Amino acid sequence: MRGVVMCGPGDVRVEEREVPQLVAPTDAILKVVASCICGSDLWPYRGADATAEPTPMGHEYVGIVEAVGADVKNVTVGDFVVGSFFASDNTCEICRSGYQTHCVQRQPGAATGAQAEYLRVPLADGTLVATPGMPDADLVPSLLAASDVLGTGWFAAVAAEVGPGKTVAVVGDGAVGLLGVLAAKQLGAERIIAMSRHADRQALAREFGATDIVTERGDEGVARIKELTGGLGAHSTIEAVGTQESMMQAIRATRPGGHVGYVGVSHDVSLPGQELFFSGVHLHGGPAPVRRFLPELIDLIWTRQIDPGKVFDLTLPLDQAADGYRAMDDRTAIKVLLQD
Amino acid sequence: MRGVVMCGPGDVRVEEREVPQLVAPTDAILKVVASCICGSDLWPYRGADATAEPTPMGHEYVGIVEAVGADVKNVTVGDFVVGSFFASDNTCEICRSGYQTHCVQRQPGAATGAQAEYLRVPLADGTLVATPGMPDADLVPSLLAASDVLGTGWFAAVAAEVGPGKTVAVVGDGAVGLLGVLAAKQLGAERIIAMSRHADRQALAREFGATDIVTERGDEGVARIKELTGGLGAHSTIEAVGTQESMMQAIRATRPGGHVGYVGVSHDVSLPGQELFFSGVHLHGGPAPVRRFLPELIDLIWTRQIDPGKVFDLTLPLDQAADGYRAMDDRTAIKVLLQD
Repeated sequence: MRGVVMCGPGDVRVEEREVPQLVAPTDAILKVVASCICGSDLWPYRGADATAEPTPMGHEYVGIVEAVGADVKNVTVGDFVVGSFFASDNTCEICRSGYQTHCVQRQPGAATGAQAEYLRVPLADGTLVATPGMPDADLVPSLLAASDVLGTGWFAAVAAEVGPGKTVAVVGDGAVGLLGVLAAKQLGAERIIAMSRHADRQALAREFGATDIVTERGDEGVARIKELTGGLGAHSTIEAVGTQESMMQAIRATRPGGHVGYVGVSHDVSLPGQELFFSGVHLHGGPAPVRRFLPELIDLIWTRQIDPGKVFDLTLPLDQAADGYRAMDDRTAIKVLLQD
Repeated sequence: MRGVVMCGPGDVRVEEREVPQLVAPTDAILKVVASCICGSDLWPYRGADATAEPTPMGHEYVGIVEAVGADVKNVTVGDFVVGSFFASDNTCEICRSGYQTHCVQRQPGAATGAQAEYLRVPLADGTLVATPGMPDADLVPSLLAASDVLGTGWFAAVAAEVGPGKTVAVVGDGAVGLLGVLAAKQLGAERIIAMSRHADRQALAREFGATDIVTERGDEGVARIKELTGGLGAHSTIEAVGTQESMMQAIRATRPGGHVGYVGVSHDVSLPGQELFFSGVHLHGGPAPVRRFLPELIDLIWTRQIDPGKVFDLTLPLDQAADGYRAMDDRTAIKVLLQD
């Protein structure tokens, strides 16, 4: 089969690889229907994370179950399924509390790389959720979004305790930030302030429910949020970048007693204890337990109440994956979908 | 009148000072019935915070209203009242959300220093809470505790989302940590693990409701908490120290999705973003909005359901305040009450 392999910084290739086989009785093999390129895939692409040896890529996927191990009960051959980037048993105490990304058995959800024709998923019963039937083609991008960026933006909104009557600030206008806007809207936020300086992303933010756009960044961005909130700051802030600047912007844009939901993977971030202490905010985040939200998100997509697939502004066949990485690295695309 | 003044590191004196007068129409003047020495008073005492000029000390107090400004409606001359370390209007949006320590009008609650015979309290209507009548003498220490250490320990427990069925770890065996144990017990915690290596504090922790004592610190302390919680960590952790070690100990002792309530004033603390991200914990804390809890705490004390005054293990007349500072600095006393 063909599959994407990162051979070094900037060096993405589609290579002929072995079709993955069942290893554990809890595994499933999927025929991948669609996968995509994640902002986090750009870290090794840019050389920020060392890739010592060629690495199969991709952790976002939807597909059709091709084979299941002897212990798999919840999904069956032929099911269309959505997974997520961590595999979880969904039965341990941590999973039952809604933190499947910290499952006591957690392991990569796309064991063999999702940017490929076939994929092995461990702990299939806990990890995969089947859709009510075969989706119409136009639903595939949205279901794919649910497997990571939508689930992550949704978790950020939940972690930020978004709800009716609240003002929400969103730091970051990538796919996760934009879907954080969509989640905030669905969760009933009264006002949603998207921070973005790109016209196309601003437009999508508005389409997803943003009521205000702030183009300023850093301290100026914080000042603007304060201005828009009677000097107090947002009730809820979604942080979807993961840099020192964005984290501090999120904390400072939030009122005392307010909530920051952060899902940008932290790189070299260090939070000053004293400032955090006197900010009085709640801080919660981390790798999103997408699995917690999948049944609800699949239902919202299936019944066409939300259309998160709009974040994919470039679709390429698997063979052109390298072009997709380049487009996301250049920021000429927000999010690239790979589908033959 | 007599009042405590910090003249420099290690130099605490009781001096003759002017009796404070009403300044704003929202002020009240109290005759102080009892005050106490706070762990945070030791920072300047030890030279960690610069005291450029002689500073009146004390921010924990109970007293009898001696005079009120023209705008004060909620307390009246002769009332026995409990205040807290920040004055707040208790009407602004931030106060109404329960974060009175971040009131838009916030200012020091003991404007002229509480370790004195008389005290001026700003924003008296929002800051002071009257007891149902004159308290019996044995209730005074507990009511005094409510004004800071009990309110702070209580907030830490609330911030850590302590509740029925939960296992709570408490980092710090000072007055706040010990009262965090008491709060956890009142809030219905199933298991309360106090971290302490001092026999007298362990005994008080057990009296307040601790079910387990862990004497190890740092990584060993974390390992012990994990051992006691099936490898998962505590549901809720109260952090009542404010050092790098204690904050990391609290975060690491908490399970993914669990809650850390931190109230130790952070000094030189810096939280590593990546570790925090992958910990999956909730973090909330800061200067405790004691005012939020005062009515409830006064009721629990008045009806003798709790006896937080037990944290005072040394009572001295105001004139011997310097001995009190020394005893707390030497750790020969947990908490010193000053009352003539």
